[in-house]
Amino acid sequence: MAFKKRIRHRDILESQVERVIVLSLYDVLIIGGGPAGLTAAIYACRAGRKTLLLEKGVFGGQAVSTEIIENYPGFPEGISGFELMINFHKQAERFGCEFLNAEVLELKTAGESKKVITSTGEAVGKTIILATGSKPRELGVRGEKEFHGKGVSYCATCDGFFYRNKKVAVVGGGDSAVKEALYLANMVREVVLIHRRDQLRADKILGEKAIATPNIKICWDTVIDEIIGEDKIKALKTHNIKSQQTKDIDVDGVFMYVGSQPNTEFLGAEFEKNPQGYLLTNENLETSVPGVFAIGDCREKLSRQVATAVGDGALVFSAVEEYLQRD
Amino acid sequence: MAFKKRIRHRDILESQVERVIVLSLYDVLIIGGGPAGLTAAIYACRAGRKTLLLEKGVFGGQAVSTEIIENYPGFPEGISGFELMINFHKQAERFGCEFLNAEVLELKTAGESKKVITSTGEAVGKTIILATGSKPRELGVRGEKEFHGKGVSYCATCDGFFYRNKKVAVVGGGDSAVKEALYLANMVREVVLIHRRDQLRADKILGEKAIATPNIKICWDTVIDEIIGEDKIKALKTHNIKSQQTKDIDVDGVFMYVGSQPNTEFLGAEFEKNPQGYLLTNENLETSVPGVFAIGDCREKLSRQVATAVGDGALVFSAVEEYLQRD
Repeated sequence: MAFKKRIRHRDILESQVERVIVLSLYDVLIIGGGPAGLTAAIYACRAGRKTLLLEKGVFGGQAVSTEIIENYPGFPEGISGFELMINFHKQAERFGCEFLNAEVLELKTAGESKKVITSTGEAVGKTIILATGSKPRELGVRGEKEFHGKGVSYCATCDGFFYRNKKVAVVGGGDSAVKEALYLANMVREVVLIHRRDQLRADKILGEKAIATPNIKICWDTVIDEIIGEDKIKALKTHNIKSQQTKDIDVDGVFMYVGSQPNTEFLGAEFEKNPQGYLLTNENLETSVPGVFAIGDCREKLSRQVATAVGDGALVFSAVEEYLQRD
Repeated sequence: MAFKKRIRHRDILESQVERVIVLSLYDVLIIGGGPAGLTAAIYACRAGRKTLLLEKGVFGGQAVSTEIIENYPGFPEGISGFELMINFHKQAERFGCEFLNAEVLELKTAGESKKVITSTGEAVGKTIILATGSKPRELGVRGEKEFHGKGVSYCATCDGFFYRNKKVAVVGGGDSAVKEALYLANMVREVVLIHRRDQLRADKILGEKAIATPNIKICWDTVIDEIIGEDKIKALKTHNIKSQQTKDIDVDGVFMYVGSQPNTEFLGAEFEKNPQGYLLTNENLETSVPGVFAIGDCREKLSRQVATAVGDGALVFSAVEEYLQRD
């Protein structure tokens, strides 16, 4: 992808052992180049704060692989995730953001200056913003990768609208799966909720509501063996784990809700996380480590959308600015 | 403005006494058609929730009169506030939002269905989202209205960037004024902080920092009598309230920070507010009244930007959806 960009700026010296050492002291180090990180970069750079954004892969995060984003305000006809993320990146670049393609291995947060140890060297900053995102847990069945974006989705809020009056499956039995099944039931013809157990893990009120919703059908004790189709998915091959009976279920789409994982494994015990690993923040998006903030999908929050990531990115800047001013 | 739009839909009956009665029960009633309200509308309508958005004036809120917005992610070259707000409005309309131009006079929030009493009748909804915004307090001097947008600004985060290497004044002595003076000092040549008292009201650390910043000059005991210029502002006519000495201060811009007011006067005592009148919400943006949510500038928060309003609008939808699902 042309979008992938290596940093070239005079603050970096390459040593003999292929280590890059960033000599400058940055006001803000941002880890993660998705919508949240890029928004924080736009705000920080526009305010004249010396900012380095570190990204290990392709800029744009999960959004970059979203075919069309219809609910990011400002684009009435929708916009491809790829194009939108190029716009974010250009905007950050325009205001002077420096970019580095490197994987962050460790943070050293004791003391006034915080150090980021990366695969290619170290960077030092007065503040750090964690914007490392999360990844949906895959179900791990045949056809899942092949039909991703062609009927297989991990986000009903993003893609549900494309299945109006169609038939979809939702896989899972927790709060997310049931909430999204209820959400989809408002717009699709029929929702088949496929769950491998004989009762839902979701909270009772939600579960009862799903059971009482006429166009939600629950397949208990059922697992998917394969997703089949041609250009797009056509059906799910399933079997009942008690009776061992097999069954093909015709669907236009399937939404996987078997959990998600924040990219927070590299962070030490000084960072408070919830049991799923999402970072806990206060109302100003500061983590349990002073001067280190968390925004976007990697933090515990109710909604994980481009729009909420952008909100976080703008909000955190005010908190970072306040921190730097009091420094 | 062509953008102003009257609702025409079959759910409204006009009675003899020029009252409009909305017969439908809406899932969501949104009060206020700025960036926050329009975002909430996009999300709610796209999810198939029957939604009515009430606006007393022109859609787009304060953003509509912003000449260019450079920090809303997605538009690398910036976009006029007017154009951006038209896009938001079109997007909400595309997903089926209903609009009503009416002033809300009172809410009746007891019971499951909530009633909104407007200047032209009543509307009933299962949930209400307050997105009524706020207005900056004007200083009230000659030239202030005339040069608004031509050197007079109420938002350093929005407009500071246009004054790089120029000289600006900031009016006020509270936290906001001092924070914004420090913010501007990073990018402009010189900041003149004009304050009518002989000490700052702002918190001590901020105040000391401002006093220690070489390119911030503080004019104590000083008030502005008039803002003068031609196409753009050129200078401020001021006088010292102790010595009565007058002085013209040449500036390229002036930022007013003499407070702001949320549009929350019509809300009763059942709504918890802070001393300035901003609505208090929990982390899911619910007010002290169950089923009534608050988003954007009318609620107590650290940052009041289009981007944070959009974040609120997307986030509140998840909370509203959860409320409706548990209903």
